[in-house]
Amino acid sequence: MTNITNEKKVYNFKDDYSEGAHERILKALIDTNFEQQNGYGNDEYSEKAKQLLKNKMNNKELDIHFLSGGTQTNLIAISSMLRSYESVIALETGHISVHETGAIEATGHKVNTVKSSDGKITVDLIKSVLDLHIDEHMVKPKMVFISNSTEIGTIYKKKELEKISNFCKNNNLYLYLDGARLGAGLCSEESDLTLEEISNLVDVFYIGGTKNGALLGEALVIINSELKKDFRYYLKQRGALLAKGRIIGIQFLELFKDELYFELATHANLMAKKLSVEIKKLGYKFLSESTTNQIFPIFSNKVIEKIGDKYGFHIWEKIDNNSSTIRLVTSWATKEEMVDKFISDLSKIS
Amino acid sequence: MTNITNEKKVYNFKDDYSEGAHERILKALIDTNFEQQNGYGNDEYSEKAKQLLKNKMNNKELDIHFLSGGTQTNLIAISSMLRSYESVIALETGHISVHETGAIEATGHKVNTVKSSDGKITVDLIKSVLDLHIDEHMVKPKMVFISNSTEIGTIYKKKELEKISNFCKNNNLYLYLDGARLGAGLCSEESDLTLEEISNLVDVFYIGGTKNGALLGEALVIINSELKKDFRYYLKQRGALLAKGRIIGIQFLELFKDELYFELATHANLMAKKLSVEIKKLGYKFLSESTTNQIFPIFSNKVIEKIGDKYGFHIWEKIDNNSSTIRLVTSWATKEEMVDKFISDLSKIS
Amino acid sequence: MTNITNEKKVYNFKDDYSEGAHERILKALIDTNFEQQNGYGNDEYSEKAKQLLKNKMNNKELDIHFLSGGTQTNLIAISSMLRSYESVIALETGHISVHETGAIEATGHKVNTVKSSDGKITVDLIKSVLDLHIDEHMVKPKMVFISNSTEIGTIYKKKELEKISNFCKNNNLYLYLDGARLGAGLCSEESDLTLEEISNLVDVFYIGGTKNGALLGEALVIINSELKKDFRYYLKQRGALLAKGRIIGIQFLELFKDELYFELATHANLMAKKLSVEIKKLGYKFLSESTTNQIFPIFSNKVIEKIGDKYGFHIWEKIDNNSSTIRLVTSWATKEEMVDKFISDLSKIS
Amino acid sequence: MTNITNEKKVYNFKDDYSEGAHERILKALIDTNFEQQNGYGNDEYSEKAKQLLKNKMNNKELDIHFLSGGTQTNLIAISSMLRSYESVIALETGHISVHETGAIEATGHKVNTVKSSDGKITVDLIKSVLDLHIDEHMVKPKMVFISNSTEIGTIYKKKELEKISNFCKNNNLYLYLDGARLGAGLCSEESDLTLEEISNLVDVFYIGGTKNGALLGEALVIINSELKKDFRYYLKQRGALLAKGRIIGIQFLELFKDELYFELATHANLMAKKLSVEIKKLGYKFLSESTTNQIFPIFSNKVIEKIGDKYGFHIWEKIDNNSSTIRLVTSWATKEEMVDKFISDLSKIS
Repeated sequence: MTNITNEKKVYNFKDDYSEGAHERILKALIDTNFEQQNGYGNDEYSEKAKQLLKNKMNNKELDIHFLSGGTQTNLIAISSMLRSYESVIALETGHISVHETGAIEATGHKVNTVKSSDGKITVDLIKSVLDLHIDEHMVKPKMVFISNSTEIGTIYKKKELEKISNFCKNNNLYLYLDGARLGAGLCSEESDLTLEEISNLVDVFYIGGTKNGALLGEALVIINSELKKDFRYYLKQRGALLAKGRIIGIQFLELFKDELYFELATHANLMAKKLSVEIKKLGYKFLSESTTNQIFPIFSNKVIEKIGDKYGFHIWEKIDNNSSTIRLVTSWATKEEMVDKFISDLSKIS
Repeated sequence: MTNITNEKKVYNFKDDYSEGAHERILKALIDTNFEQQNGYGNDEYSEKAKQLLKNKMNNKELDIHFLSGGTQTNLIAISSMLRSYESVIALETGHISVHETGAIEATGHKVNTVKSSDGKITVDLIKSVLDLHIDEHMVKPKMVFISNSTEIGTIYKKKELEKISNFCKNNNLYLYLDGARLGAGLCSEESDLTLEEISNLVDVFYIGGTKNGALLGEALVIINSELKKDFRYYLKQRGALLAKGRIIGIQFLELFKDELYFELATHANLMAKKLSVEIKKLGYKFLSESTTNQIFPIFSNKVIEKIGDKYGFHIWEKIDNNSSTIRLVTSWATKEEMVDKFISDLSKIS
Repeated sequence: MTNITNEKKVYNFKDDYSEGAHERILKALIDTNFEQQNGYGNDEYSEKAKQLLKNKMNNKELDIHFLSGGTQTNLIAISSMLRSYESVIALETGHISVHETGAIEATGHKVNTVKSSDGKITVDLIKSVLDLHIDEHMVKPKMVFISNSTEIGTIYKKKELEKISNFCKNNNLYLYLDGARLGAGLCSEESDLTLEEISNLVDVFYIGGTKNGALLGEALVIINSELKKDFRYYLKQRGALLAKGRIIGIQFLELFKDELYFELATHANLMAKKLSVEIKKLGYKFLSESTTNQIFPIFSNKVIEKIGDKYGFHIWEKIDNNSSTIRLVTSWATKEEMVDKFISDLSKIS
Repeated sequence: MTNITNEKKVYNFKDDYSEGAHERILKALIDTNFEQQNGYGNDEYSEKAKQLLKNKMNNKELDIHFLSGGTQTNLIAISSMLRSYESVIALETGHISVHETGAIEATGHKVNTVKSSDGKITVDLIKSVLDLHIDEHMVKPKMVFISNSTEIGTIYKKKELEKISNFCKNNNLYLYLDGARLGAGLCSEESDLTLEEISNLVDVFYIGGTKNGALLGEALVIINSELKKDFRYYLKQRGALLAKGRIIGIQFLELFKDELYFELATHANLMAKKLSVEIKKLGYKFLSESTTNQIFPIFSNKVIEKIGDKYGFHIWEKIDNNSSTIRLVTSWATKEEMVDKFISDLSKIS
């Protein structure tokens, strides 16, 4: 992934964290600013946000913790749930496999990787790892890591997730879902899953805030009661208990007290869809069938160079000597006029 | 340390992170909110804040990184600088010794603890550890950890810090300074140290933002060039690279673009001094001679109970069956009228 | 501990691993040498040795594993039994506290140290640690580490061990006994404990072979069934599964098929007692009341220098400018004539 | 790999550690048994063995350490040489990739795996990993792990090793060679490498004793002086310093004081060649072109079942529903008559 953005671009479609926070979130921080609250996440706002999320998922037994970012959440959650010789199965494109600087391995655990073209793991892929690991000379796979939406913009359908979930239950594997872009995933027009359904199918997952309108913050949801014990010790030990933990609680409260979280994700998806539809019309192909806020058109090097003069994005991977896939990302903050402008500029180049 | 705070209290002197952020900091976040910036701390604001801090310390060769909290900063910095068999020497009262859930040990390193009554380490204490560790059957002490202001409110004078610094240099030890409350330390009326002088005497230190007016954020300053290499890899691997890293850069820029950082700390210290002077007048003794924003008066159990009905604070440690030390903490947000009220209420009890 | 031994000494009382193995052990290795056996401890001899030990302890449910040395055994056993934020309580003189190069911390766990003058932990000492560790900002003590015989030659009486055992059970703490010198401990004339009784009072312990006549090898005995699961994975992952695991099984079979293990320890203790009685007669005091194979007389520097010309030993600790405690260690291989000669030489010096 | 051995077999070709030690080694242990020697590898025999090996490699600057087994050696050496975010590149068939229970990951490091059909890594494979890892969001590859002989019996030729060595030097990568079966590798009739040449081409490697006639023991050779510092601390911390370290020193002294080490490996290779030649004559194919003591014929399930009634071996991998590759291993202890018998029995089945 090569970053070809610079400050002179007209506009960035590089990622979904280029701006600050949605203005309602900033307002909520200001409104509560001078109240004295307990530290380390024991404040009233964090408590209210947790209650709200539990209600949304119809499950009072959930444990919810607020953390500051995705890698931190993945590494703490995964390491807390595995014994030292247990491993986690993930796709090669899974965020923990390559893009977290060995954060999982740094906690002592192997990531067993498997390959897929659509960003989604399957029961067969999981089985292929189990079949290889049979005794104490090898690690013992104990967890399956998936992302929704996936790292290449695709989503799991309910049936797909149910199959994986059942297989995991039957094979004594934990199922962990990375929801850095869960908003985009759930608000995809192809999605037939709800937040509550996800909470019924996985053991642990997180609801990403950073990439959907918050300044920072992810909400880790622990469903499996085996995994709840003493979790705050892990948070503190890994440096994840913010003294002013309230600042994440306040944000999640704002995002979920009405439909803001989903509205922001829906906007991002719509902007991506517009881009996608129009790029297709211009005759371009795509790496994956994304229905979320990340799309992966394949452009010739010349097109990439020209459109890259005005817009920021990442080159995702080389297709051949003449062309590459680029990644265009939209967000809650993407302006429709800039989407239109991109399409217009692209059509002139093509 | 027992927390006897609850929400019905009139006012909390529990800690310096009960409120949000100084209003100038919130304003700065709002003003920059819709600008598109690079992620992961590669934004213009973080860059400007780093330049500003380097200028303040007259040293263009410094490496500066923004992290989200003190324990995170300590564990990443310390573990990145030690080989697996090397240890860090700290006081029993040092924050890493007891109050970080074994975060340093969780990265694989022993903390060698020594005792002191005033919260400050000395060359003799350091030597006592070196004398005990002589071969490969024991860890090899390689770093000295100090805090300024200390965990019990005291500060290092320039001469004291110079002695420790010289000893460390001569004995091949790194000197690390935890500056969670560096503002309070430097703004103590007893302090004869500047930010620049500190940067000349230690190998690494951090400038605490969370406890001095920021929503979150600490600025780690690496002076010793041996310790700079690839530091961002450590940040990413431990989950400390915030996607919207700008939010810490913006805050430090605001705190240091004029004297705000020092003004906030000075206010906190003044409020603590007022408390301290008046409590002394009422005949109470103190655990330590604090000249910063944490003071440790010794009260009888009855006084603690009565004043505890109205004010939040921590019981620091039991003195005997009849009395304990409590910790009162002031901050940039402490209202003078509440200090006056506390004194008035205490004088009625006494 | 300073080593003042060199090769020109007449004789070493430095430790109990200066020689190879008891000749019956060598013979057993030779007798079985050309048989083909399964690797990694799955051989018939290891299996027989385990059965034998289970019978000796009247408990068929024990899990027994053979490891190559004490530090390896301690670090694997302790780390396998603790979650990452859990700590182990040990005396400052405990082997894991100082003399294993931070091996426990290297697996991520804090050692909470307490002080005692006789090498033995007490319920009050354990309680003092528990009282200090009350929430998620601190580690959670979960295990108590003791040694028998202790690092300064003393032993636990049955009543003492029962008290500690009960306290641990009632406080949800695992009790781990380091038996590097368990033979000497059990064969002390003051001991009222048997191997079986120890197995009923602790959760895990090991029976030391290296220091009692084997070439190498310790037998880890897991009593608490919570701690048994998948233990061979830990062994393999830490590099402790010897390909020719048979060589430890064969040795333990030989040591325990009759009373050899206890005979060797008894000889060592007798030699130490003889040294001790005679040294006392010469008017010297001792650091501890050892009844096992390590004794700690206090000599003037002059005596240490002169006797050090002929005999090897370690200087344990400085008492004052004029005198130090030395450690004299006997073993299964100690020759009585050399004990006599040491006494004779000492009496001429005194 | 499925183990189909049991005790009723006529003979095992399962591995090269089914027997004890060569009789000269046992004799050496007996001859030196009652001498008093320093502990922890500071004995005269270990010292002499190190000198001898240095002489054999014509390099007095080498650091040599004796460890008890291959996984232990790999995990200590590799983890001591990498910073926490650095990774090691290995083949999928590399021993550290799958067959050490995540031992490398347990020390915090990622293993980047690549694929090859002949068990040998190439510059192109190494480059493919480097090309993917470009910034601090990914690990930084810093070491290349190879084995000689390889896990499937093949060997590196001098030119191949030189190419890899040069590439590593030019790209700031350490080259580590796992020599668990180095004897077999060097004594292969195809090999054009010497021990000295290997020491000139890699940064670190080990000479395997366990699989070539010793009871236990590997000699780690550190050539790159950057990697030598304080190595004994790592050994102690990971539980690898044997109290009676002499027992490995004595064995390596015996193996290398004349040509014993190479004679034993040559015998093993000859026995494998005989098997291999005769099996080929019977019309069977092989998984790899092994010239060392592990061969991998492909048999039908029926043949495997029948020959498996009499001989022990591992099924290496399934080829299709009707056939699999098995692994036959010979050693210093393999009896030629049993090789002949195996061939004779196989020819009757075929």
